[in-house]
Amino acid sequence: MRKLKIIKIGGNVINDKQELESFLNDFSDVDTLKILVHGGGKRATELSATLGLETKMIGGRRVTDEASLEIVTMVYAGLLNKNIVAKLQANNCNAIGLTGADANMILAHKRIVKDIDYGFVGDVDRIEKDTLALLLNHKITPVFAAITHNKKGQLLNTNADTIASELAKGLSGIFDVELIYCFEKKGVLLNIEDDDSVIEEINKEKYESLKKDQIIAEGMLPKLENCFESLENGVKKVIIGKPELIRKSGIKHTSLTL
Amino acid sequence: MRKLKIIKIGGNVINDKQELESFLNDFSDVDTLKILVHGGGKRATELSATLGLETKMIGGRRVTDEASLEIVTMVYAGLLNKNIVAKLQANNCNAIGLTGADANMILAHKRIVKDIDYGFVGDVDRIEKDTLALLLNHKITPVFAAITHNKKGQLLNTNADTIASELAKGLSGIFDVELIYCFEKKGVLLNIEDDDSVIEEINKEKYESLKKDQIIAEGMLPKLENCFESLENGVKKVIIGKPELIRKSGIKHTSLTL
Repeated sequence: MRKLKIIKIGGNVINDKQELESFLNDFSDVDTLKILVHGGGKRATELSATLGLETKMIGGRRVTDEASLEIVTMVYAGLLNKNIVAKLQANNCNAIGLTGADANMILAHKRIVKDIDYGFVGDVDRIEKDTLALLLNHKITPVFAAITHNKKGQLLNTNADTIASELAKGLSGIFDVELIYCFEKKGVLLNIEDDDSVIEEINKEKYESLKKDQIIAEGMLPKLENCFESLENGVKKVIIGKPELIRKSGIKHTSLTL
Repeated sequence: MRKLKIIKIGGNVINDKQELESFLNDFSDVDTLKILVHGGGKRATELSATLGLETKMIGGRRVTDEASLEIVTMVYAGLLNKNIVAKLQANNCNAIGLTGADANMILAHKRIVKDIDYGFVGDVDRIEKDTLALLLNHKITPVFAAITHNKKGQLLNTNADTIASELAKGLSGIFDVELIYCFEKKGVLLNIEDDDSVIEEINKEKYESLKKDQIIAEGMLPKLENCFESLENGVKKVIIGKPELIRKSGIKHTSLTL
């Protein structure tokens, strides 16, 4: 099976023009098949503020009402996605910008309301792996904005980490998939205040014990749950760390295995 | 050769929610291979106004500065394009939303400044016909927002009529192409104040004589020049009229032939 790297970048890379450019140069040099998944960054929040829209948060999570969904669609799928694609094209990386609605790539449903109504937020049901494989096998590099749809005409704001892991799981039957989460830390930290306290290897057993001892920061828990679910569903390797690890070897990071 | 219809809709269809929905239902029912090209509509102008940006016009044409290009990228490639794609997907039309940057589909250069600097406006150089044919042959329907790129990292605002005719010309070697321009009139009018005065057939000779006698409205001239250029470059048929002509037969319209 051919090797496929699925790389997710978060808002911190997107927000800094120079850091984004440097990352996109590195990404263009990745010499396996590859997919980029990008989050939003502060532009959506800024545009909301300029338009006088209130950003509603519940328990640290954004609520996506109709106006927010429009903003997110404009900024993520329009401004960010197309500028990233244009920059990759300049590097001779044949990128194509997508949301989950495009070619029905990522089908989701609106999150079912239990206690909290998060609005137009999607939970992923399936990915269109054959069409993705068609593009990849023609050396076209998908670049996903974190938006899906329900195939009933509704776009849905969707967590970018989840999109990356769903793509990784769905494509693991066709490719030898490595999932790489790039963020602002060097990896999973033993002490959140010490950026050098990276736990370099975590297996399922170690994860359970770290979780039990409440050593892992709360925000990291859903990310790691996602990672282990990916590994249990055929993904070969999951890596968490700074964006530069995709370019240089020897950069400290966290590797996850079962 | 397989039949391909390239259909362009303008702002008037986009601006009216019901008219857009009705058009998209009709478009989904078109039973040949097909491509949709959409213009912008008033949302971009509205968003500019809300953000306090001035829309600069020279000789009736919009000047695209950096801020306008951001707005256009957000509204055309994000909001409009992705909502159109989601609605087509709901109709089981396997749409994929694209700009010219995606998979390098439409390569352009920034318009050379002679007397007037229109800013980030693109003139088309070539289309990526093989990748387009790959999608079409897999029953995927490209939906183009009127944005291209220069493959040096720069997105460019580009006339939607031109995109439609360049796609038609470029694909005419592979498919049997019909180009359909949908707008608010029933066709090319003999008397611009009489919506029923449709000239139903115009060939090159008749066009030259209508032009000489100054019968054709000035705004229609560049559109018709585009049409005849398409016909001279392999496009089989060009049609101009109201959106409903794609659904019903017997709707009055203008047919162009060489």
